[in-house]
Amino acid sequence: MSATTIGVIGCGYWGPNLLRNFAENETAELRWICDLDETRLTAMARRYPSVRSTGDYRRLLADPDLEALAVVTPVATHFQIAKEALLAGKHVLVEKPLTTTVCEAEELIDLAERNGRTLMVDHTFVYTGAVRKMKEIVDSGDLGELLYFDSVRINLGLFQRDINVLWDLAPHDLSIMDHLIERHPDAVSALGSCHIERGIENIAYLMLHFSDDFIAHFHFNWLAPAKIRRTLIAGTRKMILYDDIEPTEKVRVYDKGVTTNRVSDREADYQTLVSYRTGDVWAPKLDATEALHYVVAEFLDSVRTSRRPLTDGAAGLRVVRLLEAAQRSIKNGGQRIPLTSLSLWERE
Amino acid sequence: MSATTIGVIGCGYWGPNLLRNFAENETAELRWICDLDETRLTAMARRYPSVRSTGDYRRLLADPDLEALAVVTPVATHFQIAKEALLAGKHVLVEKPLTTTVCEAEELIDLAERNGRTLMVDHTFVYTGAVRKMKEIVDSGDLGELLYFDSVRINLGLFQRDINVLWDLAPHDLSIMDHLIERHPDAVSALGSCHIERGIENIAYLMLHFSDDFIAHFHFNWLAPAKIRRTLIAGTRKMILYDDIEPTEKVRVYDKGVTTNRVSDREADYQTLVSYRTGDVWAPKLDATEALHYVVAEFLDSVRTSRRPLTDGAAGLRVVRLLEAAQRSIKNGGQRIPLTSLSLWERE
Amino acid sequence: MSATTIGVIGCGYWGPNLLRNFAENETAELRWICDLDETRLTAMARRYPSVRSTGDYRRLLADPDLEALAVVTPVATHFQIAKEALLAGKHVLVEKPLTTTVCEAEELIDLAERNGRTLMVDHTFVYTGAVRKMKEIVDSGDLGELLYFDSVRINLGLFQRDINVLWDLAPHDLSIMDHLIERHPDAVSALGSCHIERGIENIAYLMLHFSDDFIAHFHFNWLAPAKIRRTLIAGTRKMILYDDIEPTEKVRVYDKGVTTNRVSDREADYQTLVSYRTGDVWAPKLDATEALHYVVAEFLDSVRTSRRPLTDGAAGLRVVRLLEAAQRSIKNGGQRIPLTSLSLWERE
Amino acid sequence: MSATTIGVIGCGYWGPNLLRNFAENETAELRWICDLDETRLTAMARRYPSVRSTGDYRRLLADPDLEALAVVTPVATHFQIAKEALLAGKHVLVEKPLTTTVCEAEELIDLAERNGRTLMVDHTFVYTGAVRKMKEIVDSGDLGELLYFDSVRINLGLFQRDINVLWDLAPHDLSIMDHLIERHPDAVSALGSCHIERGIENIAYLMLHFSDDFIAHFHFNWLAPAKIRRTLIAGTRKMILYDDIEPTEKVRVYDKGVTTNRVSDREADYQTLVSYRTGDVWAPKLDATEALHYVVAEFLDSVRTSRRPLTDGAAGLRVVRLLEAAQRSIKNGGQRIPLTSLSLWERE
Repeated sequence: MSATTIGVIGCGYWGPNLLRNFAENETAELRWICDLDETRLTAMARRYPSVRSTGDYRRLLADPDLEALAVVTPVATHFQIAKEALLAGKHVLVEKPLTTTVCEAEELIDLAERNGRTLMVDHTFVYTGAVRKMKEIVDSGDLGELLYFDSVRINLGLFQRDINVLWDLAPHDLSIMDHLIERHPDAVSALGSCHIERGIENIAYLMLHFSDDFIAHFHFNWLAPAKIRRTLIAGTRKMILYDDIEPTEKVRVYDKGVTTNRVSDREADYQTLVSYRTGDVWAPKLDATEALHYVVAEFLDSVRTSRRPLTDGAAGLRVVRLLEAAQRSIKNGGQRIPLTSLSLWERE
Repeated sequence: MSATTIGVIGCGYWGPNLLRNFAENETAELRWICDLDETRLTAMARRYPSVRSTGDYRRLLADPDLEALAVVTPVATHFQIAKEALLAGKHVLVEKPLTTTVCEAEELIDLAERNGRTLMVDHTFVYTGAVRKMKEIVDSGDLGELLYFDSVRINLGLFQRDINVLWDLAPHDLSIMDHLIERHPDAVSALGSCHIERGIENIAYLMLHFSDDFIAHFHFNWLAPAKIRRTLIAGTRKMILYDDIEPTEKVRVYDKGVTTNRVSDREADYQTLVSYRTGDVWAPKLDATEALHYVVAEFLDSVRTSRRPLTDGAAGLRVVRLLEAAQRSIKNGGQRIPLTSLSLWERE
Repeated sequence: MSATTIGVIGCGYWGPNLLRNFAENETAELRWICDLDETRLTAMARRYPSVRSTGDYRRLLADPDLEALAVVTPVATHFQIAKEALLAGKHVLVEKPLTTTVCEAEELIDLAERNGRTLMVDHTFVYTGAVRKMKEIVDSGDLGELLYFDSVRINLGLFQRDINVLWDLAPHDLSIMDHLIERHPDAVSALGSCHIERGIENIAYLMLHFSDDFIAHFHFNWLAPAKIRRTLIAGTRKMILYDDIEPTEKVRVYDKGVTTNRVSDREADYQTLVSYRTGDVWAPKLDATEALHYVVAEFLDSVRTSRRPLTDGAAGLRVVRLLEAAQRSIKNGGQRIPLTSLSLWERE
Repeated sequence: MSATTIGVIGCGYWGPNLLRNFAENETAELRWICDLDETRLTAMARRYPSVRSTGDYRRLLADPDLEALAVVTPVATHFQIAKEALLAGKHVLVEKPLTTTVCEAEELIDLAERNGRTLMVDHTFVYTGAVRKMKEIVDSGDLGELLYFDSVRINLGLFQRDINVLWDLAPHDLSIMDHLIERHPDAVSALGSCHIERGIENIAYLMLHFSDDFIAHFHFNWLAPAKIRRTLIAGTRKMILYDDIEPTEKVRVYDKGVTTNRVSDREADYQTLVSYRTGDVWAPKLDATEALHYVVAEFLDSVRTSRRPLTDGAAGLRVVRLLEAAQRSIKNGGQRIPLTSLSLWERE
């Protein structure tokens, strides 16, 4: 088995992590590093002396010996670079969020399909030990019927100029929810506020509405005093508290719930009896392997075996759809934005 | 100075706490205990053998030697009992929320005013050491310009049949915010879901909209695996994290913030420079005295001196207005409900 | 079944709690309250109007209709009062520590035996949900071979004039260990320091030595900035972390351990292979009932059925033996004090 | 200013971190990497392609262009390598603990002195933001008179074959205490147990005795279910809780203490009045720079300016003296080992 040749475009915050993981994966052969910034490019080139480096990503596209590349550039450039790469016959791994619009995401999916190339989005959290364990638990049905998903991701975060807090942080939690719950929301409503710079929300609340009583709510915030990353997933039988700040016991499964019994009370009068249940708490052991290790392995394997990756273009599109609708809702003061139910979920 | 004679109507969950605090306050003379439930009444009568007990609250109203009473009954009965009490010339302390509608609250305020009697609502949290300290800090201006208020109050709570999670938990956080921020929201939007019993929300998210970029958001939940009571109050210069679960360091003041400088960049092009500041954290010592001690003292003092209490009828009304609007918004799928700006804030 | 008549001697810090629990137990009939302090006595008498009250405990001893009494007085007086009570034919529950010397404890045990009366010590923690659950776990053998017991109980505590930090706090952890481990230490060594008042240690470290590699270590401290109550119980297969400050998940069982395999390495040279195991964490649901409820129930039941209570005189003696030896070690600069192995453990 | 040429001997767990920090310091020129393990050496050589690599440290000693080197090898080899290096005229930075015996440490100090070379020990924690901030606080006198130092460093740690838990973990806390308190203990007593392998303690308790009531106590443990790294430093006026597991607020200063007033009570009878004080808690902002950055900078600067480094040979010797005495005490069942008061403290 010969190694897949890899190029990485973008060596900013996240790029070096991908570089390192590709370098450590023996089924990959790091062939190109690309960045517009001379200093960063030089630093990376020094770290990986055997790898070609350039400031022009089109040199990668033109290299017939390069099979696959990762796009780790600012969000606004994802579409253009990924499109050209797919047209050049490369397999593409794109940093989250996949694109800035639904149309762009759909075009990339189409392109990948037509060219028989892998399109994968780097929804990193999906590959963490915590989320993989929660996926097992949710899929086992142990939680009972799912009731709600509530996520808080706040911090005194890096203020960004090109995207707001929603496009920066929401892809994490939306991709986690999408992966765990596997349900389409019917509508989105969101509210936000711009305290630092006009037009760039630094705080946002997002609500997903579903066809039944299940709801999902999110709080994203760049201006919080403490770092909180906490998700609640409640079922009728058990509940999960996922605290990503905890060093080891990130996932706790609470054997707690509510039972409702409809009791016939003499004649036609039905009464509901609500009883609470509270039992043990269980913190399963989690795989502590760096998530990017699995991201890179999944990409390489799906390229090699021509199979659809776990976080494929459709997964990327689903998240972009929610972001786009949420942004529209914020601009309209929290208006509920319906999501036309496309066949986005199917992963056939 | 002769002690004020006191009657307590309702000996359920909260009543005994009020009884105990009145009994321990030497400016009060506990004269009547009232409850429909024979067992509870007997238990309390045994605990306070010198106090008259009855199942009929009208006996209290008819007692010319009774000056003041506390209404600690189910919410739906607050209005009727308080109204009759005011008409009978008694001073009245009402458990939160004051009433179930704005109209009722307004009528009680009117009645109290016309009869020259004290009407106070038991917004207990306002009297805690934590909230009183935060009031000092907010009023000092140290936080800078206020940006947002975010509160989470969740638990595997007692499911109630007569009220939903909003009417049960929101009065706490709304009264805290009302007290600390002293601003009128322009509108309310809220979303909720009924997972246990049709028509009774067990989870609710509430957003208050203001005339500027300040926002307030709340999460109330009876069906959560863990108990979280956490409030963030962010200003441009400092931020507060109030964690009511912490045994001692409930209030932390973070010397963190963002500074934005608009810099003239050559010609007419202005650029914003955002700089983060992160400094020490300070957890002020808090008065650990039971809040009800101060509630009772405030009520007795305002009765004695004929002054307006800190949490007067207007404070109760403001909270009921928000609850009523939030309930309406939930029923309308999160619609933004405008609040006609009455002169509710003035405490003249 | 007629109720057992009860007297409580001492209404200071702990007495009122015992009073309340006896009052709530329907197999007990509270007959006497006794305290030297007039104010406290009056307060308690008002709370329990049907109960006789006195400042002279000998009036209780002289009452032929009084069957049992609780001694909740300063430690130095336990022996004298309990002795007279046993001689007067009363069953006796004594606040921890049982006495101030081993001799006194032995005399009380003798007296109780000869008079056929119940002698019980109020080792409250033994009756908590946390300790009872840990007892189950330890007894199940799930922890494997026990390796060590490590306990920290520190706080900015009430400084006491009549006893030092050892006699104040150590009875808790020593009685917990005694109950859970059921092993006799061979020797005790302890170190302490008096920072506040000469002769009264406010910090003490205590080590129990056993016949094998098992060790037990304790840190007691009245002068610590934060409240820590944390016990580790390590076995070869699993480990317990008991954090009494945690509101609900006080007991965590870690599926962690070390496996050592002696491997024959070619000839006569044996090598040890050490492998670590780290698995799930489990926080069992705990009975949240107040421990004193069970203390009182155990006392009443053992009186009624003439059986030996769980925390009998021998349990009290074992703790006093450790305290006495530890105190001697502190006075001798940490010298190891051997414990002559009496047949103290047997609970025949 | 020309850069100091540096060689690093040992590329195991800690070596790569030192390599990286030397590589990033522009006043250093990384010249040699040395390790007996071929794989590790190759990996490091690939990472720093311009640096010479070898399996034989004597090649470094023989290179006249090499000025300084770091010894990051197993403890038992520190002395031999450092000695040869000093004899070869190199400046030497030695990983903690400096040596395995006091004699060896003294010989290295002598050699360095006589050859006019820098001898520094890598007591990394001394250079952390947390310890540097605590040093400021202690030196300011704000804590009042110091009362005790209590440290717990436990974990399910890597079991080591060549050293026990004492020699592995204690250098951290002993060097922190030595640096902060600047006092000589008079004696050491220690207890430990070997649960995994005969002769290698995996749990140890260590007590330092001083000429007055100040005491220092340490708990080291490789077999604990959870990771705890917590130090208490108590003074008469304030107390520090240093929790190294906390992500940001590692150091908390509690405005808590005890005041004792000797009051003349009528005639010659003096009474002590003890009053507790409890105030705010303050968590100062800490420098988050990696400690090794400062270790490397301190070494390079002291080489360049021929000054004594902060953690010089004497600091290393003081820690080794305590370790040696503690080990002797463990072997003698906790016997108190006096420390002949050499002039170890002076840093003239």
